[in-house]
Amino acid sequence: MSKTPVATGEERLIAKYFAPLAAHPGALGLLDDAALLSPPAGCDLVVTKDAIVAGVHFFAEDPADAVARKALRVNLSDLAAKGATPAGFLLALALPDSVTDDWLKSFAAGLGADAEAYGCPLLGGDTVKTPGPLMASVTAFGSVPHGKMVQRRGAKAGDRVIVTGTIGDAALGLKLRSEADAARRWKLDGSIREHLLSRYLLPQPRNAIAVMMQTHASAAMDVSDGLAGDLAKLCRASGVSAEIEVARVPLSDAARTALAAEPALIDAILSGGDDYEIACTVPAAQSDAFITAALVLGVKATEIGRVTAGQGEPQFLGEDGRPLNLSQTSFSHF
Amino acid sequence: MSKTPVATGEERLIAKYFAPLAAHPGALGLLDDAALLSPPAGCDLVVTKDAIVAGVHFFAEDPADAVARKALRVNLSDLAAKGATPAGFLLALALPDSVTDDWLKSFAAGLGADAEAYGCPLLGGDTVKTPGPLMASVTAFGSVPHGKMVQRRGAKAGDRVIVTGTIGDAALGLKLRSEADAARRWKLDGSIREHLLSRYLLPQPRNAIAVMMQTHASAAMDVSDGLAGDLAKLCRASGVSAEIEVARVPLSDAARTALAAEPALIDAILSGGDDYEIACTVPAAQSDAFITAALVLGVKATEIGRVTAGQGEPQFLGEDGRPLNLSQTSFSHF
Repeated sequence: MSKTPVATGEERLIAKYFAPLAAHPGALGLLDDAALLSPPAGCDLVVTKDAIVAGVHFFAEDPADAVARKALRVNLSDLAAKGATPAGFLLALALPDSVTDDWLKSFAAGLGADAEAYGCPLLGGDTVKTPGPLMASVTAFGSVPHGKMVQRRGAKAGDRVIVTGTIGDAALGLKLRSEADAARRWKLDGSIREHLLSRYLLPQPRNAIAVMMQTHASAAMDVSDGLAGDLAKLCRASGVSAEIEVARVPLSDAARTALAAEPALIDAILSGGDDYEIACTVPAAQSDAFITAALVLGVKATEIGRVTAGQGEPQFLGEDGRPLNLSQTSFSHF
Repeated sequence: MSKTPVATGEERLIAKYFAPLAAHPGALGLLDDAALLSPPAGCDLVVTKDAIVAGVHFFAEDPADAVARKALRVNLSDLAAKGATPAGFLLALALPDSVTDDWLKSFAAGLGADAEAYGCPLLGGDTVKTPGPLMASVTAFGSVPHGKMVQRRGAKAGDRVIVTGTIGDAALGLKLRSEADAARRWKLDGSIREHLLSRYLLPQPRNAIAVMMQTHASAAMDVSDGLAGDLAKLCRASGVSAEIEVARVPLSDAARTALAAEPALIDAILSGGDDYEIACTVPAAQSDAFITAALVLGVKATEIGRVTAGQGEPQFLGEDGRPLNLSQTSFSHF
């Protein structure tokens, strides 16, 4: 359709910046009102929808390409936790008047790079003006063999609790952005500070281990609103509780440095948001195999505790074996 | 899961207002990060995504239940034009602090009523805070037999151009909201004025004729950005042009009254947005059968012109057979 004359401003914007990302045949070149998508034979389609708003989930001054990547990655992270292979995504973009061509060009470049890297092509969407802050609402699609989606429910007493990567970095990165003297207080030098900032700016979703999640995990979710609160949600959905040994929760060198300087940060580390790691439960006999298999796929996974019978908030146990009192167990907008 | 304790504010909000709408088993009671959806055997999944923003697509003071219905219906309208049967939807809702419990209750009631009426259950979504205006971003899913989605491309020279319902009402309704003296100028009494206002407030998507679209229509789209501009898009996608006889474009009594008082309104009628009617092309020999079949299903359909060879803007011909000069052929935010 490249010789078709293009008319309205919205059509031009789509043709210029977004049509090049619509490689999937079902996207119909972004020239239709809808897209076509069918899961492979024998597969279920997994759908997820997470929106990000300037001033709430990212800073308005963040680089446009990072905003695009974050919008897509927070959804890819959901697919990974569910054991789903990315199949494509839709994007609704609400743009304030202040957005420039350069911003859109950079946004599209970031989006295209991640769409390619994660095998998740743009299928369609909607672009609207807003008098408010910029908002990107992504709907992502993935596929799993029929009946194999890893749910929040399914954890059983005795299962081990495993998390990927490191916990708390993004919450500390956000504090570094918001509190001018935090880096000085926490004695963080340049590269360690950069690590925490980048973990907030750009999630690293664990799609590499999505397929092995299908066979190993009894329950899973991505950690987006804080480890403590998200584990509580998983436990509620599964009708169980859990005991987590705080000393086993994997921390980056940067987070350890900050925590040594300011021990009260344990709250932000365990309850802050934006980790975009996977928290899952795995039958005890498979825990070591899970950790090894993840490592082979380039993802560090760490056993941090176990699922217990009964209902109630998961307990976070200190080195003395006594439960910590976390002041706020989960980030919630409401 | 009704005995599961509920913790965060966001979980409470979802459990209270939205979980009752999540009747589809794939919604997993809104207790998971993702939903499951598979098209029936032999069917493609059609996906569409339209967002609405307060102050742009509706008035912030509109009744909450009408806002919810509009958010869903603008997407149902896309499914109808594509020949797809609704299968479910996701909702991303960005809420300013000013939103009250009563507002949410009314919003959920409107959403639930339409979800039920159109057979389109809530599957999942995301609720975020925004410092800006309220925004509702819906992703709707539909199913069509494999290969049967009605696309924008497919119109052929000689096909007839058909529209459902009446054109221009919503654009006039918007003018009535924005221009204090419009009702007086146009000599509109109460019920006629109400008709135009209601057509802007609450689209009437034509899902009743979706299935017959699959067999009769060579190309289609819903009229959301104005008949002239949207037909131009359909023609561009199909590589054709069209001749429309303006006298045949179906108008409501209210629109006729206003147009008689102010002939320049023909521009707003043909180029304004928010009709949410279907514009489609149908082989000439099937035009009468299409119109009759639609009528049986309760939808008035009207032939307004024909598809012509060659590329270019569709021509809107006046009673003298000469083309009108429309000042702006389509609403575009950009």
